[in-house]
Amino acid sequence: MFKKVHVFRVRPGEELLSNIARYCREHGISSGIIIGIIGSVERARLNFLMELPGKYESVDYPGPLEIVCAQGSVALKDDSPIIHIHIQLSGQDICRGGHLAEATVLSTAEVAIGELDYHLRRQLDSYTGLNELID
Amino acid sequence: MFKKVHVFRVRPGEELLSNIARYCREHGISSGIIIGIIGSVERARLNFLMELPGKYESVDYPGPLEIVCAQGSVALKDDSPIIHIHIQLSGQDICRGGHLAEATVLSTAEVAIGELDYHLRRQLDSYTGLNELID
Amino acid sequence: MFKKVHVFRVRPGEELLSNIARYCREHGISSGIIIGIIGSVERARLNFLMELPGKYESVDYPGPLEIVCAQGSVALKDDSPIIHIHIQLSGQDICRGGHLAEATVLSTAEVAIGELDYHLRRQLDSYTGLNELID
Repeated sequence: MFKKVHVFRVRPGEELLSNIARYCREHGISSGIIIGIIGSVERARLNFLMELPGKYESVDYPGPLEIVCAQGSVALKDDSPIIHIHIQLSGQDICRGGHLAEATVLSTAEVAIGELDYHLRRQLDSYTGLNELID
Repeated sequence: MFKKVHVFRVRPGEELLSNIARYCREHGISSGIIIGIIGSVERARLNFLMELPGKYESVDYPGPLEIVCAQGSVALKDDSPIIHIHIQLSGQDICRGGHLAEATVLSTAEVAIGELDYHLRRQLDSYTGLNELID
Repeated sequence: MFKKVHVFRVRPGEELLSNIARYCREHGISSGIIIGIIGSVERARLNFLMELPGKYESVDYPGPLEIVCAQGSVALKDDSPIIHIHIQLSGQDICRGGHLAEATVLSTAEVAIGELDYHLRRQLDSYTGLNELID
């Protein structure tokens, strides 16, 4: 179950992913589910997996764009937390989603994280070339 | 944690946002996380933030469109609940998401809300011109 | 509330929906909320509701595509669990979402399911022609 549901705001001009990492560090969250993120960004970089093992391409998107939604997790690799988030962005003329590399908040990002009562763990998967969840 | 997870349906022809508000009022939900919404709409109006402070543009989308997903929260401003939802819509030829202003349900909208065991609060932020979450 | 939050991986080459069904069967999950799915697919089939009662069109999407997010539920119809998922997919050049008919995993699909402490139920709705949630 979720032993605690954390809800917090990332503010204008702040980088989204590093501020989520900072919140998790300050609140001792080592394993959790990103239940949702909504808000807006002034710019964002998304990664797209092109082929295995682990070949990504990065694309920069200028804002303003709505953060429509986001999902993902906080999990331990060895003893360090890895935050893995996919995010959906949209304006009136474009709509794209992918692996969140970085994003600068425009008005707000409202983040909800469900902290788990057990540990999620990742390890390198030689087939995909990525740090994958261990069941 | 979520003291209760509410799951309910909004029916054909009903307006989505006002029916979520009504459900929250009838069930005494003053603070919660919109975990998800899926279904379909026959029309929807989305808002897009264009610049700060708080300048939005509204766009109407005719359906039928799938409700792919939605996220957001129920939070108190003063003592009144504010429901803030971003929603992703898609058809075969168009895909857009943004701030849910209103939408009319086509077949169904299946709504899941996690009711929090503490209060979320909003207040006006003079920089963004919007009612923002207070940490 | 969520009596348990299940997090698991569907692996490269596996079909997403049938593997979620298998996980639920093996872990005795008869009612729950799909909190999220992220990852990537090498192909996917989405259904789009065109008109009532229950007329869908299916579209196949070749990958690689990111699984940006997904939402839905596990609910009982009579005594059999039905898994209903809407999923958002995106590449650099296309972004679509809809009812998940089937999808083949590329690198991973990280699935989070909140198991409910009560039963969700569906029954056929003669107006929509679909199995709809019962409040």
